Amino acid sequence: MIIDIHGHYTTEPQALHTFRDKQLAGLADSARKPASIDLGITDEALVKSVEPQLKFQKERGGDLTIFSPRAGGMAHHVGTEAVSLEWSTMCNDLIHRICTLMPDSFVGVGQLPQFPGVSPKNCIPELERIVTKLGFVGVNLNPDPSGGYWTDPPLIDKYWYPIYEKLCELEVPAMIHVSSSCNPNFHHTGAHYINGDTTAFMQLIQGNLFKDFPTLRFVIPHGGGAVPFHWGRYRGLAQDMKRPPLVEYLLKNVFFDTCVYHLPGIELLAKVIPVDNILFASEMVGAVKGIDPETGHYYDDTKRYLDQLTHLSETDRYKIFEGNARRVYPRLDALLTKRGRAGKA
Amino acid sequence: MIIDIHGHYTTEPQALHTFRDKQLAGLADSARKPASIDLGITDEALVKSVEPQLKFQKERGGDLTIFSPRAGGMAHHVGTEAVSLEWSTMCNDLIHRICTLMPDSFVGVGQLPQFPGVSPKNCIPELERIVTKLGFVGVNLNPDPSGGYWTDPPLIDKYWYPIYEKLCELEVPAMIHVSSSCNPNFHHTGAHYINGDTTAFMQLIQGNLFKDFPTLRFVIPHGGGAVPFHWGRYRGLAQDMKRPPLVEYLLKNVFFDTCVYHLPGIELLAKVIPVDNILFASEMVGAVKGIDPETGHYYDDTKRYLDQLTHLSETDRYKIFEGNARRVYPRLDALLTKRGRAGKA
Repeated sequence: MIIDIHGHYTTEPQALHTFRDKQLAGLADSARKPASIDLGITDEALVKSVEPQLKFQKERGGDLTIFSPRAGGMAHHVGTEAVSLEWSTMCNDLIHRICTLMPDSFVGVGQLPQFPGVSPKNCIPELERIVTKLGFVGVNLNPDPSGGYWTDPPLIDKYWYPIYEKLCELEVPAMIHVSSSCNPNFHHTGAHYINGDTTAFMQLIQGNLFKDFPTLRFVIPHGGGAVPFHWGRYRGLAQDMKRPPLVEYLLKNVFFDTCVYHLPGIELLAKVIPVDNILFASEMVGAVKGIDPETGHYYDDTKRYLDQLTHLSETDRYKIFEGNARRVYPRLDALLTKRGRAGKA
Repeated sequence: MIIDIHGHYTTEPQALHTFRDKQLAGLADSARKPASIDLGITDEALVKSVEPQLKFQKERGGDLTIFSPRAGGMAHHVGTEAVSLEWSTMCNDLIHRICTLMPDSFVGVGQLPQFPGVSPKNCIPELERIVTKLGFVGVNLNPDPSGGYWTDPPLIDKYWYPIYEKLCELEVPAMIHVSSSCNPNFHHTGAHYINGDTTAFMQLIQGNLFKDFPTLRFVIPHGGGAVPFHWGRYRGLAQDMKRPPLVEYLLKNVFFDTCVYHLPGIELLAKVIPVDNILFASEMVGAVKGIDPETGHYYDDTKRYLDQLTHLSETDRYKIFEGNARRVYPRLDALLTKRGRAGKA
């Protein structure tokens, strides 16, 4: 079974965008507020909207995508906390409907109603709802709700602890994923995303978060940002800071996905990061949509790169494509097992 | 000849730190201002202070280090524009003295008196001074003088054009190098530096700076941040944005150093970045000071990693260790040629 742990709903129906425009216009002129939160999107329209994802999933040999709202769309810095909550609820509900309509293809991960300067504690009701009511198996946590100004405390600060407590209690991992950037210095998918990944990992070296939360699990997307390329730097910085080796210190709790869009990058990732910490993902229909003229294949067809790593054993491949996902997302494993699709022992 | 293009003066005498403390204390209490800008540092003390760098240079087989003030020490966000100017002048003068005392080992690169929100145009007098009076061959340009809040415009903005005009006129390249971070989210060498590199490269994809400045040259340090690891992402983003292939679009003007502290990283760098764009560097006595237990050698002994790339031809090695530096820093080439050490044709 091939599980892609990083998919976003990037092909939303126009009705959702129209709602968002009205919602934000309503901040300036309350007469423009949407009349209703009922988007009027039919099940048929939802199914149709994810055809691109399903087509790629099938063509590339995938089985299941862990699916969450568009990352750039979260835009936690926009509007007010109430706007963020309404928007998050609505986006999560759409994911839930898609996962209910196509349970064999999609399993849900949620967006939190974060807002800059507001305690993440306020996200707990929505976190509980999406996990216990909607059956989501994980959540995206934005380490910079300000959208590129980084005005909230680092992830190791006690500011974030209430949400970590709830994540542990619910047994769901968080993917550390920034959203769009309102800072003109940071292109969102070309700088802010990658910087967010790198920044989060370095924060974890600085703190000792997993001493307080030994069962907390973070997925760092986009192959871990710059971290594997600079693995020597991070090992060396940790050592200078008298931390234990990174594998011991962080890699029981921190995992990397494979959203790295060329073979040499994937080769490096698999060379320096233990196979137990690598989870297959493509973020397809995402940041990079084109075909690589050097290969004739889509840049984001990351399974192809992994398939070229012939030194990986069958066990390694099972871990990367399925086993690690079941371990990091225990609710996914439980769900699949309940459906008669248990993992390998 | 082995030229290390990225060395900082990280072993400054205590007198410099004492001056800086008094200078900044003087902002709060003018009675605490330093009595004089004469640091009282003797030539002997200067020579002694760089013994660590000289020892490593010799042990590792280096000949010449392009040497600039401590990057983290620039701290452009601190104090006032006048403080930044006084501090930059003083730091540049120390580099000049070291390069004059040990001309075979060190050639100077300068720090600019940048200040957040202040036009880089104001840096031109100091840039002219260090190049024409002090004989420096390059300069460090901070893309984020705010120290981690990124409040100035991106590098492709016309805001920066006056300094680019002068760089072209003087024929000196700029290393795009951030300084310390006052944003608690960003560890300076573990996040801010690497993010700065990644961010700068993505900005260059977004703009078309080298159309306006065809002779401008930028060195992106730390192996280009996350860029080589995500080379497929950057090629793909450029393609989606209808830019020409990156090699054509940027690599006539943008170069990467080799400050990547493990063999797999250097292997990747040499695999995806053309050899004409890679310049040897170690940033030794810098961000990572320890010995890698996996190899028994210093993490930042980057020459060792390059020496293990046995597929490189002698011509490739010449380019990486010497030839590219002479091309990117034409004033360095002229200086060496004048001293009877011309490069290979």
